[in-house]
Amino acid sequence: MSPREIVDEMMKGDAFSQWLGVDILETSKGSCKLKCRVRNEMLNGHQIAHGGITYSLSDSALAFAANAHGMKCVSIETSISHVNPVFVEDLLRVESTEVYRGKTIGIYSVSIYNQENKIVSRFKGTVHISEKSW
Amino acid sequence: MSPREIVDEMMKGDAFSQWLGVDILETSKGSCKLKCRVRNEMLNGHQIAHGGITYSLSDSALAFAANAHGMKCVSIETSISHVNPVFVEDLLRVESTEVYRGKTIGIYSVSIYNQENKIVSRFKGTVHISEKSW
Amino acid sequence: MSPREIVDEMMKGDAFSQWLGVDILETSKGSCKLKCRVRNEMLNGHQIAHGGITYSLSDSALAFAANAHGMKCVSIETSISHVNPVFVEDLLRVESTEVYRGKTIGIYSVSIYNQENKIVSRFKGTVHISEKSW
Amino acid sequence: MSPREIVDEMMKGDAFSQWLGVDILETSKGSCKLKCRVRNEMLNGHQIAHGGITYSLSDSALAFAANAHGMKCVSIETSISHVNPVFVEDLLRVESTEVYRGKTIGIYSVSIYNQENKIVSRFKGTVHISEKSW
Repeated sequence: MSPREIVDEMMKGDAFSQWLGVDILETSKGSCKLKCRVRNEMLNGHQIAHGGITYSLSDSALAFAANAHGMKCVSIETSISHVNPVFVEDLLRVESTEVYRGKTIGIYSVSIYNQENKIVSRFKGTVHISEKSW
Repeated sequence: MSPREIVDEMMKGDAFSQWLGVDILETSKGSCKLKCRVRNEMLNGHQIAHGGITYSLSDSALAFAANAHGMKCVSIETSISHVNPVFVEDLLRVESTEVYRGKTIGIYSVSIYNQENKIVSRFKGTVHISEKSW
Repeated sequence: MSPREIVDEMMKGDAFSQWLGVDILETSKGSCKLKCRVRNEMLNGHQIAHGGITYSLSDSALAFAANAHGMKCVSIETSISHVNPVFVEDLLRVESTEVYRGKTIGIYSVSIYNQENKIVSRFKGTVHISEKSW
Repeated sequence: MSPREIVDEMMKGDAFSQWLGVDILETSKGSCKLKCRVRNEMLNGHQIAHGGITYSLSDSALAFAANAHGMKCVSIETSISHVNPVFVEDLLRVESTEVYRGKTIGIYSVSIYNQENKIVSRFKGTVHISEKSW
């Protein structure tokens, strides 16, 4: 399966990424770009996007980038820094890049930018690469 | 305002925690317990809960525990390990405890357990404590 | 090999833990306590212990706790928050506890306290559990 | 003070970075390159560099890059992944870059490469920017 086919297959059954409104722009082995429009139901009590929204988008982008090589990957440890607030109607651009890919471990970095090209969050994720292929 | 009043105030405007179905069980200065039932729309392509769901619950529990002292807190850096899968209809118990509270920085640990009392994720969050009170 | 024999074996060849002056107080499967006296050559430009000193002590304590089960473990991802300054001559107590132990992944939490029982750092480490035994 | 003067000042009193044998190659506001030769006393029981060595080099590079702007910075939360082993006599190249710089928070990424240009570790650090200048 090609990177795009794998990601389409993953998205098809992924009810939560569908709820988020994830739109996949580009995908290749180890990287992925997607976008998402922030809705009212994604806000927290400060009327900015809940930290879980940018985390979820980053985690989906990590999964797509890591799995696009063809082997099934499971996330082990992830961290995120929220550096600028995200508001309703913001159009987010999510970019996942590969920092390292070994035999059993991969590390990915995901940055999210708003429509003014300002970084809003930075994520790092470590995955375990299984021996099962897509 | 009491810890409970602060958390109720936070929940009232928090559309995403409402979407998650967060139910607050206990709250005090620096700690918080809540529960949540996993629904179909929270699942990813592997038919287990998306990592963003347990992250979001942990991040909400962090915010409630940190803000319950009375000063407004903003999350700076958070990390989570997903250690056991979460399935639809699982009833999650989310427990936030305070590891450290200084003048400007607080550190919290959040564990999530399923209905069999098995740990499913472990989260660490660092907040900046502002000088604005609730 | 017993937990204590494994840790003694690990310490024997560990030149850097010896340089640090690590003194092992207790050890069992999944946990470990050690102490260390801070020396002048461990300080940074602010005349407090370099962040690498408390990290190194935590990383050693993680390795001892994780390997004491009998299978060789390799650290994958670690994080540390430095919450209070450490001064020369401080006597540090390092405590490692097991948060989770699965078949291939283990998670450990390490706290360091000074002689006044004040927490100075909090560390989280994820290890990969290999199939090689000690 | 210029970035170079600040870093020289920091190094002068930094006994542990001197013990590590840190050699500063380049420095500017928000970034820093340094090198270091691995010695026998830096090894752990597996005869590879202790994780604390690459952490310490990364933490020093973070401090130099963050402080070079002119305001004193304190590290809040740091994480590192060790992805390839480091051996005695390896010549390490440590590169720190700025991911984000706000008013009170800065985020830096530090990668370490060996003499074969292979990545050995990846570090992320968050600092608090104080109002005290160098």
